[in-house]
Amino acid sequence: MLDDRSTLERDRSGLWQALLELPGSYAGPNRVWPAPYGAIGYGEGALAARLGEDWLSAPLVLEGTQFVLGNLDFGEAESYADIADARGVGVVRAGPSSSGGLTFLVPPSPLSHYSYAQYLAYSSGHAQEAAAADEAMRRLAARCTPAVPTDENPAKQLAWKLWTRTPLLLAARDHAARISAWHVLLARIGKSMSVPLGDEPLLVLSGGFEARHESGDQRVALILSTDDPTLTLAREMLETRVDEIIEVLPDPDLEGYAADMQLWYLGAWTAYYLALAYGQDPSDARPLSALLALEEPQEEAEQE
Amino acid sequence: MLDDRSTLERDRSGLWQALLELPGSYAGPNRVWPAPYGAIGYGEGALAARLGEDWLSAPLVLEGTQFVLGNLDFGEAESYADIADARGVGVVRAGPSSSGGLTFLVPPSPLSHYSYAQYLAYSSGHAQEAAAADEAMRRLAARCTPAVPTDENPAKQLAWKLWTRTPLLLAARDHAARISAWHVLLARIGKSMSVPLGDEPLLVLSGGFEARHESGDQRVALILSTDDPTLTLAREMLETRVDEIIEVLPDPDLEGYAADMQLWYLGAWTAYYLALAYGQDPSDARPLSALLALEEPQEEAEQE
Repeated sequence: MLDDRSTLERDRSGLWQALLELPGSYAGPNRVWPAPYGAIGYGEGALAARLGEDWLSAPLVLEGTQFVLGNLDFGEAESYADIADARGVGVVRAGPSSSGGLTFLVPPSPLSHYSYAQYLAYSSGHAQEAAAADEAMRRLAARCTPAVPTDENPAKQLAWKLWTRTPLLLAARDHAARISAWHVLLARIGKSMSVPLGDEPLLVLSGGFEARHESGDQRVALILSTDDPTLTLAREMLETRVDEIIEVLPDPDLEGYAADMQLWYLGAWTAYYLALAYGQDPSDARPLSALLALEEPQEEAEQE
Repeated sequence: MLDDRSTLERDRSGLWQALLELPGSYAGPNRVWPAPYGAIGYGEGALAARLGEDWLSAPLVLEGTQFVLGNLDFGEAESYADIADARGVGVVRAGPSSSGGLTFLVPPSPLSHYSYAQYLAYSSGHAQEAAAADEAMRRLAARCTPAVPTDENPAKQLAWKLWTRTPLLLAARDHAARISAWHVLLARIGKSMSVPLGDEPLLVLSGGFEARHESGDQRVALILSTDDPTLTLAREMLETRVDEIIEVLPDPDLEGYAADMQLWYLGAWTAYYLALAYGQDPSDARPLSALLALEEPQEEAEQE
C-alpha cells in the first residue's frame, strides 16, 4: 500500500517533498559566534539544544554566546534572553518572528528541527559536523524516498513494524535525546503515541507490564543506540514483555552529531509512512497548526 | 475491595508497614559537607539527584563535594567518583555496599528514594527542608494508611481512577522530575505502565492520538503540578483525547523539596493500592529483585 502512488494523496501539504529536499537545504547564517556557548531550547528548538550538548558549556552561560532556540516558550525565552543580555553575554535567538531580538527566522514546520540544529552547528563553529550531517541525511534520503519500494526502503519497513503496535523507546543514557526525538516525530508526524523509557528503564520495565500482561495493544521496543550495560539487561526484560525488539541505528561509520541527525531523519521518514499506513495526513494536526500560526511571522524578521 | 483486610495478603513483603513508617525514619548521617555541591544519581538514586537540583551547582563540581547516589550504575558511578577524587573534590557515595568508597549504605527497596533524598538534604545543609518533608509525609500517611476507608483515602481513590486505564503523566517544566517519580512508582510498585509526557507535550499531544483515536485502552491524564502556560494548553488538547484529567498536587501550603517529597509519597501509596486492585503483589518483580540482590551488601559497609 505504501508503494501505491495514490497513498501519497493523503499527504495534503506535500511533506514528502520537504523531507526529500531537506538534506543540504540549510541556507541560514554561518557566522561563528564567540565561545563559550550556552543554549536553551523550547518547542521545536528543544531537541537542537539537547543534541548540541557536547558543544555547550552549560544551558546558561555567563560569558560568550547564549543561544535561545525555538517557539512555544510563552515569554519564558524572552526573560532568559534579557538576563543574559543584562550580564553582557551575547544573545542569539532563532525562532518565529514574534520572539524579540531575533537573529534567525525559523518558520514552524514538522521538520524545523533541522534548521535549529544546523544553525546551532554553524554558529558554534561546527561547519564540518553540519556538512557531515547533510551528507548522512542525503545518503538516507535516497533509500527512504517514496519511489523506493517497501522491500528496499528502511523507513517503509519500519513503519509497518510499528503499525497497530505501541512503540516503547529506549536508548543508552548518553543518547537519551534520541528518545525524545522519536517520541515527538512519531506523535507529530506519525499520529501515534509511543512510550519514552528514558528514566531508569530497568526499574520501569521489570514491573510495568505485570498487572496487565495480556491486555491492550501489541508492543514493539525500539532500541535507538548501541547497548550499554543497562540496555543489555533491559533487552532481557523486554524479551518476554513485547512482541518484537528492533534496533534502529545510524550508519555504523557515523558518530556524534551526524549520527544523531541521520537517526532523527530516519524517524521523520518512518513517522511519515506510519501516518500514511494509518490513512492519516502527516501534516500537523489542527490544534497544533492553530497554535503555531499565532507565532508565525507577521512581518519581515531581521536576517543576518 | 481495597478496604477488605484480606486484600493486604497480596502484599507478601509487608510494604504497607514500610510505607506507613517511612516519614521520619531517616537515621543516616547528618553531617554537612563543604559547598558547592554536585550530585549524579543512578537507579534508585536518580530521582534524589534530580529533586535536589536547586541545592546543586551542577551535576559535576570542580570543588566542594561531589555526591554519587544510587545503584545499577554498572561501574559508571565509580569512574565519576575517581575523576572527582583526582581533582581533589570530596566524593561522597550513597548506595549498596558493592560500590567503592561508600559513606552511606542504602539497601535496595522500592522506597529507597526517601533515604537518598533525605541524605542529600541533610548532607547539603538542608536539615530544615528534610524535617519539613517528614512532616508533610507524616500528615499524608495518616490519610493513606489501609485502615482509612476508600471514601476518605486519597491514595485508594486515585488508584481506582487509574485502574484499567493508561495514565499519561504531565507537569510544568519546572517540575518535570515529578513525572519520572510517578512513572517509576506506578511501574515498580503499581505494576502498571504509564506514559511520561515531559518533553514538549504540545507537540506530542496534538498528533499522538489521531491515528488510533478509538483503539486501545482508556486513558487518564495526571497533572502533577499547578499549570504553566504549556499545561493550560495541554489540558485543552487532552479534553477530547482522554477519559479524565486529574490534578494531583501536594498540600497547598507546601513548596520546594517538601512538596516534591509529599507528592512522591502519595505516588507510592497510590501505586501500592493500584497493585492490590490488580491482584498483584506490590513487592519488586522477580527480574528486578534478582538484579538488585547482586548489588546487595556482602559485608558491613563503612558507616559514619
